[in-house]
Amino acid sequence: MLSKNKVRFIISLQKRKVREEYKLYIIEGDKIVKEYISAGVPLKSLIAKPEFISSLPKDALKEVSESEPVSYEELKKISGLKTPHNALAVVCMPDPEVNQANYLKTQCVALDCIQDPGNFGTIIRAAAWFGIKNIVCSEDCVDVYNPKVIQASMGAIIHVKVLYTELKKFLNTGSEKKIPVYGTMLEGESIYDQKLGSKGIILLGNESKGISDDLIHFIDHRLMIPRFADTTLGIDSLNVGMAASIIFSEFARRKSLAKI
Amino acid sequence: MLSKNKVRFIISLQKRKVREEYKLYIIEGDKIVKEYISAGVPLKSLIAKPEFISSLPKDALKEVSESEPVSYEELKKISGLKTPHNALAVVCMPDPEVNQANYLKTQCVALDCIQDPGNFGTIIRAAAWFGIKNIVCSEDCVDVYNPKVIQASMGAIIHVKVLYTELKKFLNTGSEKKIPVYGTMLEGESIYDQKLGSKGIILLGNESKGISDDLIHFIDHRLMIPRFADTTLGIDSLNVGMAASIIFSEFARRKSLAKI
Repeated sequence: MLSKNKVRFIISLQKRKVREEYKLYIIEGDKIVKEYISAGVPLKSLIAKPEFISSLPKDALKEVSESEPVSYEELKKISGLKTPHNALAVVCMPDPEVNQANYLKTQCVALDCIQDPGNFGTIIRAAAWFGIKNIVCSEDCVDVYNPKVIQASMGAIIHVKVLYTELKKFLNTGSEKKIPVYGTMLEGESIYDQKLGSKGIILLGNESKGISDDLIHFIDHRLMIPRFADTTLGIDSLNVGMAASIIFSEFARRKSLAKI
Repeated sequence: MLSKNKVRFIISLQKRKVREEYKLYIIEGDKIVKEYISAGVPLKSLIAKPEFISSLPKDALKEVSESEPVSYEELKKISGLKTPHNALAVVCMPDPEVNQANYLKTQCVALDCIQDPGNFGTIIRAAAWFGIKNIVCSEDCVDVYNPKVIQASMGAIIHVKVLYTELKKFLNTGSEKKIPVYGTMLEGESIYDQKLGSKGIILLGNESKGISDDLIHFIDHRLMIPRFADTTLGIDSLNVGMAASIIFSEFARRKSLAKI
């Protein structure tokens, strides 16, 4: 049985301020909770139906500080979803890797003011799929630990490092180290025809405003996904999650070609 | 001022049954309504704030049977959104193209039991971007006129033909005409290495179950998007909207190569 205080605390973790104060965040859903457990991510609390807990492998709870079997009604009280799943967990945030140079050693994604949690989650999922492990966000991006981001990322978040910083400074550091910056824009050269390296920063802009004016001059290669439609009406852009998927795929394809 | 009956009728169009009975559907949002008007799609009613209506070009209302200026409060009553925009319209469904052979003349997407409106909308948007105009859906796919599909497609829906039919029969017809079927699966050959033709059916399966067992044997080419991650934990799939975007992009890239 969950105490009133605990219920109140877990609900309060829907708020960014509280998450940041306690360095904790929430994950919800059988699949994602199982994946965190399998990956050995330390969980502060596992709150789940008794059937869920007993279905876990023997040593699954090694990295779980406390586990609490609860009823569906109790899960409903703490869930951020309309229809709660069988399990929810409170997870300790990893210490962020703050050494910016480490984000520049391999391929890196830079996000400028991404606002929609679904888009951010999709970008994380696509990045993880294509082996990109470094994501650097402008400070006005949506919080990576927002429950909707976590949901859309489908657990992929445990495979990427995420840093919030002033993008201008970060891109400047990259520029000093001669790291190429690939910016995705509606006007640019077709991504299919450009030289794409296996290192560099892929810069993605805000959903409606694109890349900020004060970051544009850092771009070495303007990437555009060609449109094959015979009209622009109703097809004036792809959303940033779709664009990211296509761009990461094309970089990965080139990498695989280079290895043959 | 909207009559009570009209308010009730517009709200009832959130339901598939009512939409199908009256052959009408709803679009919401300044941008999408403007795009429908620019594209000359006939609107049965335009319900919008007076400022919105007066901001339209002179001959914009040619294809609009009736326009009704309303207050924000009235828009709120009929809107399916938490925060309504400035305009909503009731649109006449086009007569569906029922001749299946016409869907096979150029590239075509076949959807097997796509359930999530957001995914379906994304697929339509990606198809339209890459110049694919034919979409054939199994009868258990979500309704293309579901307001969430329309929202996610961002207006791209006016550029595609959509047919609901028994997919097995449709694929059979394709097979008789020797139209190749490309099926997207987790096990298959890398899409980067396969021959991809500019004609054919791209078959996408259900979000969790993939392509139905009784359709698998129609597949001539099993397409897989290679994963570049060093683990599968938390990265066991891409969502179907992302997968569609990547696949359509790769087909388009090959088409553009063939033309050079």
